[in-house]
Amino acid sequence: MTISFDVIFPWKKPGLPGQTLLLTRRDVAALLDLDTCIVAVERAFRLYGEGKTGAPGVLGVHVAGGGFHIKAGVLELGRRYFAAKTNANFPGNPTRHGLPTIQGVIVLADAERGTPLALMDSMEITTLRTGAATAVAAKYLARADVRTATIVGCGTQGRVQLRAVRAVRAVERVYACDRDAAAAERFAREMAAELGLDVRATADLTEAAHASDVIVTCTPSREPILGLGDVRPGTFIAAVGADSPDKQEITPALMASSRIVVDVLEQAATMGDLHHALAAGVLTRSDVHAELGDVVAGRKPGRCSSEETIVFDSTGMALQDVAAAVAVYERAVLAGRGLPVTLGE
Amino acid sequence: MTISFDVIFPWKKPGLPGQTLLLTRRDVAALLDLDTCIVAVERAFRLYGEGKTGAPGVLGVHVAGGGFHIKAGVLELGRRYFAAKTNANFPGNPTRHGLPTIQGVIVLADAERGTPLALMDSMEITTLRTGAATAVAAKYLARADVRTATIVGCGTQGRVQLRAVRAVRAVERVYACDRDAAAAERFAREMAAELGLDVRATADLTEAAHASDVIVTCTPSREPILGLGDVRPGTFIAAVGADSPDKQEITPALMASSRIVVDVLEQAATMGDLHHALAAGVLTRSDVHAELGDVVAGRKPGRCSSEETIVFDSTGMALQDVAAAVAVYERAVLAGRGLPVTLGE
Repeated sequence: MTISFDVIFPWKKPGLPGQTLLLTRRDVAALLDLDTCIVAVERAFRLYGEGKTGAPGVLGVHVAGGGFHIKAGVLELGRRYFAAKTNANFPGNPTRHGLPTIQGVIVLADAERGTPLALMDSMEITTLRTGAATAVAAKYLARADVRTATIVGCGTQGRVQLRAVRAVRAVERVYACDRDAAAAERFAREMAAELGLDVRATADLTEAAHASDVIVTCTPSREPILGLGDVRPGTFIAAVGADSPDKQEITPALMASSRIVVDVLEQAATMGDLHHALAAGVLTRSDVHAELGDVVAGRKPGRCSSEETIVFDSTGMALQDVAAAVAVYERAVLAGRGLPVTLGE
Repeated sequence: MTISFDVIFPWKKPGLPGQTLLLTRRDVAALLDLDTCIVAVERAFRLYGEGKTGAPGVLGVHVAGGGFHIKAGVLELGRRYFAAKTNANFPGNPTRHGLPTIQGVIVLADAERGTPLALMDSMEITTLRTGAATAVAAKYLARADVRTATIVGCGTQGRVQLRAVRAVRAVERVYACDRDAAAAERFAREMAAELGLDVRATADLTEAAHASDVIVTCTPSREPILGLGDVRPGTFIAAVGADSPDKQEITPALMASSRIVVDVLEQAATMGDLHHALAAGVLTRSDVHAELGDVVAGRKPGRCSSEETIVFDSTGMALQDVAAAVAVYERAVLAGRGLPVTLGE
């Protein structure tokens, strides 16, 4: 069904004035790799931490069975860019319609004149930039001598999370946990082969977590799955799953006894695991150590001792999407990939 | 520069599962006329007034020299649709870059599964749906025996506004006012020829307004241009220009002495002429008679006497965009127009 547009439009060069590049999921996947995305996302957090960009905006529209979420922001990356990502989230899609839970589109524009530069499928970017945020957080917040990791939630995002942790720490052994034992087994088999690591499926999350230096939770859970008794001192936890008020992965007690770093305080306080800790009354906003951008920009320290437990509460910052979309667009222009369309004429 | 896609892709039929229709400004212009847009926008106001849709959402991102505004909403029109319009607004564009002030894109999606159905240029829709709101408001709020109208602001939107008023009332004479006298002259000449009406350019807004049954203000003014002494009893005023907190066209005194109908109360109170009347302390929110949807849905009366002055404070409701985008999409599918792309594969 997909057409190779550069075959059909060999005379149309992208990046010309008045033209907008259309990039399919396949285009984006071909143009963006995790390492590039990590670099782009780290830069976005740094610019945010340095106060060189406004607070990113979020808009939600709820409907029966799901909802739409819009994230928008501006980044100065040589040129000033604006991007808005509109993602639909329909959890019943895979079983009911054979469709992905999340579908969406990113509009990338020049933020000095407003011209739309690109329209791109959002799926790859949403997946990779979420992994990239964990990589950036682990780089600044995990111990240097990480050897063992546990991944809770063995779907597509779990795979990206493991690759992301591996990109910044010398992981040797991995525990894979999932309510669906077969999914954990498949994950272990495939990731072991892909990464050449010792990956083991296990049903005992407490045992796995206790043996781990890094724990990533990336599930759709609505109740805590990781508590104070599950982790040993010095662990870095990336709490990735909770990105709406009704989702939760970490107990308030574990949150309260850990150093908390968030991506965006306002978001974490309303839709991250922080939200539930605040609601439980065990924490206040001022107990949050930092936004990740503060740490990346050097305005606040990252890890201060090998004994402290640190939780990164990841809710998804619009600037991650902006940075990733810019990386895709600039590569597309260089590679001559994508379909240039004259939208406004 | 524009390619006729149906020539290139004769074998690709739009509206198939997994396909997203790409519609350029030219496509939208060919598919949407003002009369169709008026019907669609009236239906949107009715559904909103009947409480059959959630409150539309707005998100703004400001940058040097301009900004981006996102408007998103859901409408049930046989099928449930979601649309998000991302518009860039850069007032310096025409003189500085030879580009339009407003450029943008609408993402239309199925609101039961989230699938993106269409990506379309927003320019025609923004222009027509703004005129259409005035037509709907005039239909319910202007006297039946309207014969004379004044249009203040003789650009593209002024032309659409006049066509919109003409679509619902038997206007015979029109006064055209603009700070740029040549623009008013051109408007008068062109619109007289197009509509077969008596259209006169004038520099005396007070005289014109005093002689008019309908007055439309559609300027980028940041200070009031129409006051209490300018209008006679029974006039209908569509205040269209103010759509950000710093824009204003109507004096607080005229607002206070008129019956006020708004498109969306929350928006009018923060970025319409109502905003300035509230700030001046001459009105409170409870003095607002109705949202237009209440009137269209029959939940509140429209005009109650031929003597009352009514101001419609139009700030632009997301559901106008949703309704217009749906009309464009459904016509595109029927006509086989637009470029079908497989975005998510």
